[in-house]
Amino acid sequence: MYEGVVQDLIDELGRLPGVGPKGAQRIAFHLLAADPADVRRLADALLEVTVKVKFCRICFNVSSEEECRICRDPRRDPSVICIVEEYKDVVAIERTREFKGRYHVLGGAISPIDGIGPEQLHIRELMVRLGDDEVTEIILATDPNLEGEATATYLTRMLKPLGLRVTRLASGLPVGGDLEYADEVTLGRAFAGRRSADD
Amino acid sequence: MYEGVVQDLIDELGRLPGVGPKGAQRIAFHLLAADPADVRRLADALLEVTVKVKFCRICFNVSSEEECRICRDPRRDPSVICIVEEYKDVVAIERTREFKGRYHVLGGAISPIDGIGPEQLHIRELMVRLGDDEVTEIILATDPNLEGEATATYLTRMLKPLGLRVTRLASGLPVGGDLEYADEVTLGRAFAGRRSADD
Repeated sequence: MYEGVVQDLIDELGRLPGVGPKGAQRIAFHLLAADPADVRRLADALLEVTVKVKFCRICFNVSSEEECRICRDPRRDPSVICIVEEYKDVVAIERTREFKGRYHVLGGAISPIDGIGPEQLHIRELMVRLGDDEVTEIILATDPNLEGEATATYLTRMLKPLGLRVTRLASGLPVGGDLEYADEVTLGRAFAGRRSADD
Repeated sequence: MYEGVVQDLIDELGRLPGVGPKGAQRIAFHLLAADPADVRRLADALLEVTVKVKFCRICFNVSSEEECRICRDPRRDPSVICIVEEYKDVVAIERTREFKGRYHVLGGAISPIDGIGPEQLHIRELMVRLGDDEVTEIILATDPNLEGEATATYLTRMLKPLGLRVTRLASGLPVGGDLEYADEVTLGRAFAGRRSADD
């Protein structure tokens, strides 16, 4: 129905997550009316990502170099490794400024239903990293959902025999939330994980 | 916080209509994990649009040629021109297969609050088109909202003195809708525009 190139653009935009067919049309018509320089800037940003984004050969974090900013930083403690599912989790944790160690990005979580087993994740590379005796603690920071918990359980079983300290991020009430709106699992974990009030 | 090229992509995506900062992040991370060939296909579709999409020199419809498919089609009646705001309105009307005349795309609607007056629209070009005496009827198919109505009123005032038949799309109840859910303006118009039941 639309001119070929417009339909192609609508089709491509419609494949993006969270953009339905109506949204794709809306974006396409916006771009038709936009300054061509703006459209080219978006296209360039896309191409740049395909060309420049690499993954750190140590921790699989997104990086524009062979090794990522964090792995290259001598001030980051090499004895603690925080294991996350995705690059965006690294960014979320970095934002807290609480963690001074290094990361290992698995590239997802174990999910048999999606055909993702341990071999699809960067777990072998993690074991190689642990070979040099420098690491003393592993923090499991996978998502607090079914797949994340399964991945954490699997990793705990693999890592405990190595004599490392293996920890998991605390579960509990989100700061700023209302107790009455917390779901029962979260509230139950908050009880189970209660600490002395003078901590 | 993100690697430069990733942040650039998030920024560019965030400028698209209907894509907020969270949506832009989500799309960017999806693209980071996607096959680079898919990302390049999207970038190419964007670039194609900036290069290949032209506007018909007669009616300002989107076209890949100097003159659009409809203006070039000898089977389309040149005596009736349907005036619409945007290219997407042409597509919507073409989909009905009801209209066999030609179009004129204004490129928007009169909206003083957005600084859009008659001079920002392709109204002068419309008057030039009407100069050759071939046109006998003008159908005003601007949107049934404040700006569209203002534009239709303005055009009616300009076109009536030329001795043309000027019509406006019927207002009324949408087919398939429930009468009780119609807003009062629509329902009022449906009353005012009532037709003989044996039509």
